[in-house]
Amino acid sequence: MTAIDFRTAPEHYRHWQLSIEGSIATLGLDVDADGGLAPGYELKLNSYDLGVDIELNDVIQRLRFEHPEVHAVIITSAKERVFCAGANIGMLRTASHAHKVNFCKFTNETRLALEDASAHSGQRYLCAINGPCAGGGYELALAADHLILLDDGASAVSLPEIPLLAVLPGTGGLTRLVDKRSVRRDRADFFCTVEEGVRGKRALDWRLVDAVVPRSKWQEGVAARAAEMAATSDRPADAAGIALSPLERTINSERIEYSHVGCVLDRDLRAAHITVRAPANAPPSDLAAIHSAGAAFWPLAVARELEDLIFHLRFNENQIGTWVMRTAGDSALVAATAAALAAHADDWLVREITLYLKRTLKRLDLSARSIFAFIEPGSCFTGTLLELALAADRSYMLDGAFEGDNRAPATIAMTSANNGLYPMANGLSRLQSRFLGDAEALTGAEKEIGRQLDAQEAEALGLVTFAPDDIDWEDETRIALEERAAFSPDALTGMEASLRFAGPETMESKIFSRLTAWQNWIFQRPNAVGETGTLNLYGSGKRPEFDKERV
Amino acid sequence: MTAIDFRTAPEHYRHWQLSIEGSIATLGLDVDADGGLAPGYELKLNSYDLGVDIELNDVIQRLRFEHPEVHAVIITSAKERVFCAGANIGMLRTASHAHKVNFCKFTNETRLALEDASAHSGQRYLCAINGPCAGGGYELALAADHLILLDDGASAVSLPEIPLLAVLPGTGGLTRLVDKRSVRRDRADFFCTVEEGVRGKRALDWRLVDAVVPRSKWQEGVAARAAEMAATSDRPADAAGIALSPLERTINSERIEYSHVGCVLDRDLRAAHITVRAPANAPPSDLAAIHSAGAAFWPLAVARELEDLIFHLRFNENQIGTWVMRTAGDSALVAATAAALAAHADDWLVREITLYLKRTLKRLDLSARSIFAFIEPGSCFTGTLLELALAADRSYMLDGAFEGDNRAPATIAMTSANNGLYPMANGLSRLQSRFLGDAEALTGAEKEIGRQLDAQEAEALGLVTFAPDDIDWEDETRIALEERAAFSPDALTGMEASLRFAGPETMESKIFSRLTAWQNWIFQRPNAVGETGTLNLYGSGKRPEFDKERV
Repeated sequence: MTAIDFRTAPEHYRHWQLSIEGSIATLGLDVDADGGLAPGYELKLNSYDLGVDIELNDVIQRLRFEHPEVHAVIITSAKERVFCAGANIGMLRTASHAHKVNFCKFTNETRLALEDASAHSGQRYLCAINGPCAGGGYELALAADHLILLDDGASAVSLPEIPLLAVLPGTGGLTRLVDKRSVRRDRADFFCTVEEGVRGKRALDWRLVDAVVPRSKWQEGVAARAAEMAATSDRPADAAGIALSPLERTINSERIEYSHVGCVLDRDLRAAHITVRAPANAPPSDLAAIHSAGAAFWPLAVARELEDLIFHLRFNENQIGTWVMRTAGDSALVAATAAALAAHADDWLVREITLYLKRTLKRLDLSARSIFAFIEPGSCFTGTLLELALAADRSYMLDGAFEGDNRAPATIAMTSANNGLYPMANGLSRLQSRFLGDAEALTGAEKEIGRQLDAQEAEALGLVTFAPDDIDWEDETRIALEERAAFSPDALTGMEASLRFAGPETMESKIFSRLTAWQNWIFQRPNAVGETGTLNLYGSGKRPEFDKERV
Repeated sequence: MTAIDFRTAPEHYRHWQLSIEGSIATLGLDVDADGGLAPGYELKLNSYDLGVDIELNDVIQRLRFEHPEVHAVIITSAKERVFCAGANIGMLRTASHAHKVNFCKFTNETRLALEDASAHSGQRYLCAINGPCAGGGYELALAADHLILLDDGASAVSLPEIPLLAVLPGTGGLTRLVDKRSVRRDRADFFCTVEEGVRGKRALDWRLVDAVVPRSKWQEGVAARAAEMAATSDRPADAAGIALSPLERTINSERIEYSHVGCVLDRDLRAAHITVRAPANAPPSDLAAIHSAGAAFWPLAVARELEDLIFHLRFNENQIGTWVMRTAGDSALVAATAAALAAHADDWLVREITLYLKRTLKRLDLSARSIFAFIEPGSCFTGTLLELALAADRSYMLDGAFEGDNRAPATIAMTSANNGLYPMANGLSRLQSRFLGDAEALTGAEKEIGRQLDAQEAEALGLVTFAPDDIDWEDETRIALEERAAFSPDALTGMEASLRFAGPETMESKIFSRLTAWQNWIFQRPNAVGETGTLNLYGSGKRPEFDKERV
């Protein structure tokens, strides 16, 4: 299978129409039925596959960076008579288990990014449901702040996965019903078993939508609500956006290289050695220079490159089970860049860059890969880059120098960025998650914010897992990687998902634990994916035969 | 397979030794290797199967009810040189997927019951780890308040599931490490990959145990700590316990009958029709009479009978996918009994009865079955029994009477019991969970506490899902049951687990969502259960062959 490329831009979109008028953008879903990412299925009725969602993810990002003037976004269908039929069933039938699971993760992250834009970027989302809106289509709608349903006797919202397909609405729908929209659980139960869904007054009474509008008042109703939502935004009205220029990379079977991020694959150890490089120069001197640097500004470039690498490794390299994070370069320049961001934290673009870094780091937490950090001389695990080590399942920091290496021993440093700028899905910083229930250790670490810490100090503070010296380093790190490669990938995924998210759960973390884990299970069960399971028989006219045993 | 019987008593135990001295009980694990519940495996090295845990669950209950004088419990091994090797691997290999999942659920509930005894009944648990303590053995230890590890060079704690078996520690171990004991996540990661585990000082430093004691000071060290823990108890020193007399039931292929609980199986609809009957008489007139009634006292008898029925249906009737809850009898007597409990809420026995009801209702929430409540004339859904309807995925309440039926239309009534006496795993009452995020509806319902509500009132308040009249009742309820029987059991399980627990998550709910759902997935994956998976090859000398793909 050819590698999936996540890089796109509006001029390449096949499935979405973007139009902008004043402070309102409209995103029209108009799926090209022949534009599936893989052969073997047709994207009828505005149903979608990963390709459709790659474009959606791209446009959500671009609206944030390229269009500061957009204060509200309308998602609607550009097709007559259908809003969206959800994830394409032919795609689900032909996709591997790994692809299905990664597809759901990606679409979940996209919907959360949309909610993040509304909550933190002042770009509010309205969903104008102008036709039947089923399954993943309704789950997309649920991510919006406000849902308007056309009252034409045909437009309805539904989650028909259970009666129709024997799988779950796996893109946050169940969680958003009860946790975000406070739909009563017994009504949610009924709703999820009714193939044709709910429309009109009942949809409104049950909180499934926020408004029901007849066709005669549709255009003006949607426009008026969008204008109201736009009016609540704190985004600038007249700023110029920055262009998210095409992401350059070179790629071959052993190596992926971006401007600031590199990755070498060790297929024997099934490990990806990822290095994030510090900026080569001092940051732009003022805010105007930051804007003028645009997509070339180091923190934004790192966020984009690391994100693209995460996508690539998740989807195209799923035999690579361990990601080893390294950094390289001058930590003073990393710190200076962080200071520049902090100095202009209330600028809209700087805010966007910080939020993009936050989302990218969250994608690390959610990646079903073992993550190690190796902290060696020449590294720059400072502030934002220290988050890479704090996101790791384990970190190894060399105590001292390698024999024959003149470089100074590695140090790490916390900055204020580590103390709340990049919350995880559980709502806590990675430092808070690390020291959960151990207030003394957290306070002890926080006292050292700003100081360069050597390996023994870092270990004593609990910031790294192990601090072997030169004599032990080679053996300890090699054995750790070999061991990881020998374990069952499934067991590691389950373990990491359980240990990474101590403490509170949020709607976001619940989507990825409770809902996703159950969906993954169902995606393995014969009733869904067996020879006589629903996905195989869908559309064949044959009825699936279920094992009636309750587990 | 013969039905599994969950009823036992100390005189029948094969695997546990109970001894009581003053305020301290000692529970010695001494598994009879030939005493497995099913043929085909040997319970070596104090490894366990469901039969061992049925006894543990029984003894935890009995210590609460029969021994008010016991204020601390020591769990230890009665064998030389081993504490517990965890769940038996031969059992896991031969058990069906459904049995494995139900086994994990039961053992999880047992450990939570142990924590409940400590938190709410003043019966504190200490685990004296006198030998290697692996996997499920350590997970049992983690449920105790205090873990003492013998420092003899051989005793160690470990979670070797991932390196050894490619499954998860599925009995709360991962969650308790990071959420209960605040073990740092990177140390937990390392610990879970080291087959031989951790002992001595590192076990203490990493918070894996609370104390490490050499053999020379073992007896006195354990005894002293137990005495300290007992001293913190609020249980009476000199009260007499009540005997949990043998639970009587009659059972055949269509019907299970207890004194207050009955169940009729409709195998065509794959439904169990469960009826809980009100007490026939007024409650005992005073506290002494309650104690004297003992296990015959209606609320305690109902808790025991309903719990036994839940176990039976979960394990022995897993083709029965829907449980329909009904009640029958005089709601005034139900209310009078509740009032008697409320009047003596600070009595140790009354407290135990309430806690038992709480745990039994939680088992309902956690049962992988669709739960409906049918509220008809002659029913008594009041207070504690109303929880059965609030626990249901849906409820149907007849509006009016059936034709030709002279009985008064059904009413339901909330009492103070519905407002916090029986929290769910998420820490909220079922009313709070029902009206999560809808404070107005919650307040509206709370105002009506104490009043008998007819079907239209109950529907308007949001306390029941549907209130069809006589004309629609038969069709609506029949279609609901037929529909449920037609859906995929797996999809229903995933949906119900997602919709039932809106709102906050607790350590308890996280165990059943994040951890259990992942374990269920892994229990379906070829790396664990396939022909060349770990469980099949364990002990054969052959190495499992893993699909190296990360999902």
